[in-house]
Amino acid sequence: MQFSSALLENAVNEFSKLPGIGRKTALRLVLHLLKQEEEDVQHFSEVVSRMRNEIKFCQRCHNVADADICSICANSMRKQDVICVVENIRDVIALESTQQFSGTYHVLGGVISPLDGVGPSQLNIDTLIHRVQKEEIREVIFALSPTIQGDTTIYYIQKKLNPGVRITTIARGIAFGGELEYADEMTLARSLQNRLPIESYVSNK
Amino acid sequence: MQFSSALLENAVNEFSKLPGIGRKTALRLVLHLLKQEEEDVQHFSEVVSRMRNEIKFCQRCHNVADADICSICANSMRKQDVICVVENIRDVIALESTQQFSGTYHVLGGVISPLDGVGPSQLNIDTLIHRVQKEEIREVIFALSPTIQGDTTIYYIQKKLNPGVRITTIARGIAFGGELEYADEMTLARSLQNRLPIESYVSNK
Ligand SMILES: [Zn+2]
Ligand SMILES: [Zn+2]
Repeated sequence: MQFSSALLENAVNEFSKLPGIGRKTALRLVLHLLKQEEEDVQHFSEVVSRMRNEIKFCQRCHNVADADICSICANSMRKQDVICVVENIRDVIALESTQQFSGTYHVLGGVISPLDGVGPSQLNIDTLIHRVQKEEIREVIFALSPTIQGDTTIYYIQKKLNPGVRITTIARGIAFGGELEYADEMTLARSLQNRLPIESYVSNK
Repeated sequence: MQFSSALLENAVNEFSKLPGIGRKTALRLVLHLLKQEEEDVQHFSEVVSRMRNEIKFCQRCHNVADADICSICANSMRKQDVICVVENIRDVIALESTQQFSGTYHVLGGVISPLDGVGPSQLNIDTLIHRVQKEEIREVIFALSPTIQGDTTIYYIQKKLNPGVRITTIARGIAFGGELEYADEMTLARSLQNRLPIESYVSNK
């Protein structure tokens, strides 16, 4: 593509760096912004840069937060003694969108995957075990993607948790090998309601 | 979608306003930016806002420009006495990408379309006629989308142009009803090479 304006070309180049955005799409987005009011584009740009500069990660659960502690951990209306363990922030958003869960989360930052060089130390596992030891946690619910790596991670963590804690996994409404974040809200909500004690899950294997 | 961070939610909302970007895609783009270096996101945001605030429209041809006159009009290596008339900026980019055209452009800003309420006065037609009268223009090439509206626009303008000027249209390598900007570079380049005098075009109708 040939541009007669460096300002336009630079903006197209920046949008092209985003995942799944080719140069034709980038041009379409930039020309759309060019047609908007100056204040609106200013606002777009400020919101994006503020998001990156000011966002924090919750010191307790590693979820995204606007303060040191996320709004879920800070909400006394939620069951602070129930932890739902997820891989990433997208999973928190997916589960919150079901409006069926009133506990807290713990974002691992991935799953154990030796082939990808991801071991337990790269994940937020220590802080989870510490949380369960220190806080009076009643239940840990695993909501990991139903893959070999997800199962390995559940197996690794459950061995390290206090024997007194109830450990469950969300019901497998999702096909094995499927990605949690792409499940519809109904499936997710139901699999949370039908969660199983870890014993029945481990013994099924 | 439920977010536990207003910073994240605001950014997703902003991206969702872009054409063709749904909330799932917006979230994916925002989470990607969240993983990038702070300086890189700062740069993205600055480039976008600079583009909108500083971009100009060429006083001669209405193309996007970084100064009062665009880089094509300011380039003395190009044939300043040949004008290629196009609908919009995307068409300039498409034709420039063929690297087959060494004249200048005139961006109409659309085509005459009474049903959409677009008459000649809403388009940059007066400035084109004025340009042809004032500058020593040798040839006017119409590169409009091959639609009824495009044809109406060609017909309207060619009647108002100086009798001495050569008037041509790009060859119809593109299917009637097709959109110029989606044509591949080869088709565009060829249709420019095989352009026809306006007489043969008008008499074909
Ligand atoms: Zn938290
Ligand atoms: Zn110009």
